[in-house]
Amino acid sequence: MVHYSRKLDDAFTALSDPTRRGILERLGRANASISDLAEAFGMTLTGIKKHVQILESAGLVSTKKVGRVRTCTLGRRSLDLEAAWMARHQQMLEARLDRLGEFLERTKGQES
Amino acid sequence: MVHYSRKLDDAFTALSDPTRRGILERLGRANASISDLAEAFGMTLTGIKKHVQILESAGLVSTKKVGRVRTCTLGRRSLDLEAAWMARHQQMLEARLDRLGEFLERTKGQES
Repeated sequence: MVHYSRKLDDAFTALSDPTRRGILERLGRANASISDLAEAFGMTLTGIKKHVQILESAGLVSTKKVGRVRTCTLGRRSLDLEAAWMARHQQMLEARLDRLGEFLERTKGQES
Repeated sequence: MVHYSRKLDDAFTALSDPTRRGILERLGRANASISDLAEAFGMTLTGIKKHVQILESAGLVSTKKVGRVRTCTLGRRSLDLEAAWMARHQQMLEARLDRLGEFLERTKGQES
């Protein structure tokens, strides 16, 4: 359970930054080196590396260094756990709205 | 676009902490005061208030103070935007796996 929770923490943290979401979108189209990403996002190598490390810790990006070039690819980890958590939240929200709707319906006659 | 991105930042940040996800799950069952939440999560009032503020900024929780009691309810904001972003990511991952599969299939004869 702690392990599951930690995975959600890491993935949602990784997704909470626009540059990191941009990196995932970019890698969805093609693999890229750290330098490619730094150029694409107008950031320093150090800045991009930090973002890539956070994505890598969450399993959303894999990197491999060959010679002096570190190439980044989309990690194999899917966002299934996170999607399932959010779907449950959505169900709770809808159930709450249904209960509110029923309450309003039930008390409609009492106003007039 | 910036506004859309900011919404994603706020929601994913809000979801990146286990106590904040726990508060959402708790409020999905019933409304609760700040004191109720502090007791349920074994935290100080100040600690819980900080978490609730982050959830409120993201639109995921609403609060209303009557007298000295601040009651928290689930906010109206759904996680549709976030779910859509994640579904797109999932499609990219699958497309990448398909391409990899095709490549392996195409080059299978060449190994032997």
